[in-house]
Amino acid sequence: MADKKVTVAKLADLAGGELVGDGEVIVSDFNSLEAAKKEEISFLANAKNADQLETTDAGAVIVPVSFDKECSFPLIKVKNPYLAVAKIHTFLLEKDFVSEGIHASAYVGNDCTLAAQITVKPKAVIGDNVTIGERTIICSGVVVGNNVVIGSDCMIRPNVTIEDGTEIGDRVVIHGGTVIGSSGFGYATDEMGVHHARPQVGVVKIGNDVEIGSNCSIDRAAYGVTCIKDGVKIDNQVQVAHNVVIGEHSLIVAQAGLAGSTEVGRNVVMGGKTAAAGHQKIGDGCMIAGGSGIVGDLKAGSVVGGRPSMPLKQWRKSVVVYSKLPEMHKDIKELKKEISKLKNDEK
Amino acid sequence: MADKKVTVAKLADLAGGELVGDGEVIVSDFNSLEAAKKEEISFLANAKNADQLETTDAGAVIVPVSFDKECSFPLIKVKNPYLAVAKIHTFLLEKDFVSEGIHASAYVGNDCTLAAQITVKPKAVIGDNVTIGERTIICSGVVVGNNVVIGSDCMIRPNVTIEDGTEIGDRVVIHGGTVIGSSGFGYATDEMGVHHARPQVGVVKIGNDVEIGSNCSIDRAAYGVTCIKDGVKIDNQVQVAHNVVIGEHSLIVAQAGLAGSTEVGRNVVMGGKTAAAGHQKIGDGCMIAGGSGIVGDLKAGSVVGGRPSMPLKQWRKSVVVYSKLPEMHKDIKELKKEISKLKNDEK
Amino acid sequence: MADKKVTVAKLADLAGGELVGDGEVIVSDFNSLEAAKKEEISFLANAKNADQLETTDAGAVIVPVSFDKECSFPLIKVKNPYLAVAKIHTFLLEKDFVSEGIHASAYVGNDCTLAAQITVKPKAVIGDNVTIGERTIICSGVVVGNNVVIGSDCMIRPNVTIEDGTEIGDRVVIHGGTVIGSSGFGYATDEMGVHHARPQVGVVKIGNDVEIGSNCSIDRAAYGVTCIKDGVKIDNQVQVAHNVVIGEHSLIVAQAGLAGSTEVGRNVVMGGKTAAAGHQKIGDGCMIAGGSGIVGDLKAGSVVGGRPSMPLKQWRKSVVVYSKLPEMHKDIKELKKEISKLKNDEK
Repeated sequence: MADKKVTVAKLADLAGGELVGDGEVIVSDFNSLEAAKKEEISFLANAKNADQLETTDAGAVIVPVSFDKECSFPLIKVKNPYLAVAKIHTFLLEKDFVSEGIHASAYVGNDCTLAAQITVKPKAVIGDNVTIGERTIICSGVVVGNNVVIGSDCMIRPNVTIEDGTEIGDRVVIHGGTVIGSSGFGYATDEMGVHHARPQVGVVKIGNDVEIGSNCSIDRAAYGVTCIKDGVKIDNQVQVAHNVVIGEHSLIVAQAGLAGSTEVGRNVVMGGKTAAAGHQKIGDGCMIAGGSGIVGDLKAGSVVGGRPSMPLKQWRKSVVVYSKLPEMHKDIKELKKEISKLKNDEK
Repeated sequence: MADKKVTVAKLADLAGGELVGDGEVIVSDFNSLEAAKKEEISFLANAKNADQLETTDAGAVIVPVSFDKECSFPLIKVKNPYLAVAKIHTFLLEKDFVSEGIHASAYVGNDCTLAAQITVKPKAVIGDNVTIGERTIICSGVVVGNNVVIGSDCMIRPNVTIEDGTEIGDRVVIHGGTVIGSSGFGYATDEMGVHHARPQVGVVKIGNDVEIGSNCSIDRAAYGVTCIKDGVKIDNQVQVAHNVVIGEHSLIVAQAGLAGSTEVGRNVVMGGKTAAAGHQKIGDGCMIAGGSGIVGDLKAGSVVGGRPSMPLKQWRKSVVVYSKLPEMHKDIKELKKEISKLKNDEK
Repeated sequence: MADKKVTVAKLADLAGGELVGDGEVIVSDFNSLEAAKKEEISFLANAKNADQLETTDAGAVIVPVSFDKECSFPLIKVKNPYLAVAKIHTFLLEKDFVSEGIHASAYVGNDCTLAAQITVKPKAVIGDNVTIGERTIICSGVVVGNNVVIGSDCMIRPNVTIEDGTEIGDRVVIHGGTVIGSSGFGYATDEMGVHHARPQVGVVKIGNDVEIGSNCSIDRAAYGVTCIKDGVKIDNQVQVAHNVVIGEHSLIVAQAGLAGSTEVGRNVVMGGKTAAAGHQKIGDGCMIAGGSGIVGDLKAGSVVGGRPSMPLKQWRKSVVVYSKLPEMHKDIKELKKEISKLKNDEK
């Protein structure tokens, strides 16, 4: 729960929005229109649903610029209500960092450089020669290997594994159970069909402002670096193979899988359960529908769907016809008969 | 291994079955027909396979009501042999709970209300203000956050993460590596393509008699509650996004994924690797074939398959025709030629 | 980093290759052609890319037998460069095992038989009656249940869960977060739609030289054994249900799922995100394209793709035609009209 007390005028300023009404009204938390109380601010995503404002008890409401009704409470008019909510709600929840230090039951190896203001929770394990920046929190059950660097203001949730040599930037959040830096899947097969592991001696490098969901797998590079660049957001249960590169501000939705050495550009959206084959290049700004399978490079700005993928519009049309296949098959048989008959008649 | 000694008459009673033969025969465990010994009870799933009984050493056998042969050992006739096995085998394995208490190497935070008869295994971590009911077992490596409630007779297997504010009912089993209550995947994107996290301040609520497999991800609600209702059974590696509701006694098979705010009814079966888009309503009793993709609401009782899904029968027909597509394509070309020829001839 | 100093002659011998040039040159590590320094050996995968050798600083290079240019550095000619790399790089990295013993903060239960030369890292937990062989490493956060056997030279990475009764061979590697031996998904449903768990009393047995990726789930058998045989390599996030058998030297790529009781033969390759229904038999040497769904048995040597799967060639043709479906649908409508017109004209 938030416990700041802030004027609506200040929040309008924070969100870059236009204040309508009494800017001196004070709120201390954010909530949905149905649940909000007098001391809470809420939001209306779509001006069409304006009637929802009639029954709310919220003390103030964020609305889209197209909203033009009068209200008894102050409004903040913004271009993108969701973005304003993200900024305002985050601000209301922000608290000063209070370091809990390193819990007596945690284990820290040799030659570590840990910032003065950090929290390492009970039973966390930190290897040798690890560097951790200010205000970072390492939760219980986390295992950090040797020679790892973790930046400032990071949050590593419980039972995460960070393998040797991983580098993590600032303001990175990693959720429970995720494994960063395990060995990639690389074998050479001999004449007897026996698979010999190819040593995986690279590392994983994660930029700033990255968030990674729970139970993900991000493999170290065979050599070199598996790279998750600044601002990338990865959902739960995503598989990122060795030597993959994911460009700035891309979104990878749950249960997607990226095979080895594939390069994803900036601001790409990969839907849930998408798959990309290895050694592909997915250009900047591509949008990939959920469940798609990428085989072959995608030009920047491609919008695709299907398995294997094709332009989204084309896929949507094919999908509709797919359910008519049995009928089409019957039609073709019938047409063949008719033609055969016509040809006979002709003779 | 079971170490009860029970009469077949008592087991027939427990399963609501009809006893045929000597009810005073005593058994102490359950096994397959091939492996069972004299002191074990076994089962025949299908009366057609009656010859399997000729070579078994089992002391007694559960059979379907349609079975009508005579045997030298006692039989329990039941409508649903699998159900009888589940009840009888579970009963034979049941033991009195023996509390091991809280292991000295476990960590328990402040203000917790732990029942007198519980087991907290080595290296488990429990946060502040946690309530745990009688006979619940918290295994090693489990991390329980703050303000969590766990009911009675629960089994939390190793390395599970239960985040702050989660509520769990009675008789719930959660398998290794599963993460309950991590933050959902919710961002608002600004004009520069930068994603701003929307605070995820809701919780996860899990009913009674729920079982959740290994390495699952169940995200907390954005606001409000992600809800897994009574009797739901979830297999391994299932992804449940923020604000999803899964109705009573539904089955979610391995590697399925449910996107945000989707509502699944009661007694739904979602096959392995199924995907449901966000904000869908899947009615009571729906059956969804493995690998399907649900886009759009499903009426109660729908039986569907395919990606995107369609009625199962229709999908099965389309699937068959799919492999004939190249031939159909050729046929259409041929038909065009023939017609063109016929039209010419006509002139 | 490797710190051996070895002659190229010795490495040629190790790889079974032909030495060309000065065998007395000494190298101490392996690297890519671009990054390699004088004291490192590198490799050329394909003779077509011979020009890459002109700029390398590598001290020696592994090349395919078809390579026939002269170089200023020694070469090792081999049939399979990847295999030679696997063997040589592994050899260069090999170090003598140095036991760290059992860390004071680890927990070991009663009646365990641990080899003299092992490493159990901080906060690892080992149950009762566990046997562990020589030179095996149990990392931090690992939880090993009761009555488990782990062979020699194994590496169990952090936060792995190994449930009661599991048997693991020699030289097995298991990556972070994987759960071996959790209960399978088996229920019997009563007339009210309530699911009753069928006790899962079997175990998991893992052969020698097996590698299992991160965040996998391998369920114990209902009765009997879930079996991963010698030399099997499993990628990340793979689901293996109860009573599955995977034959020797099979490869299971990331996010694949195998339903209950399915039997996979030897030297099978299952691509990423493939699914196999329960109780199927997949013959030796089958190749299954990524994203396929196996329903029905596959003969040895089958090469398939698609969901449900069909022969790969047929699937590839159908996939191409799929994107033409809307056009085909239109064509059929048009053909019907034409024929109808022709028939009218005939009258």
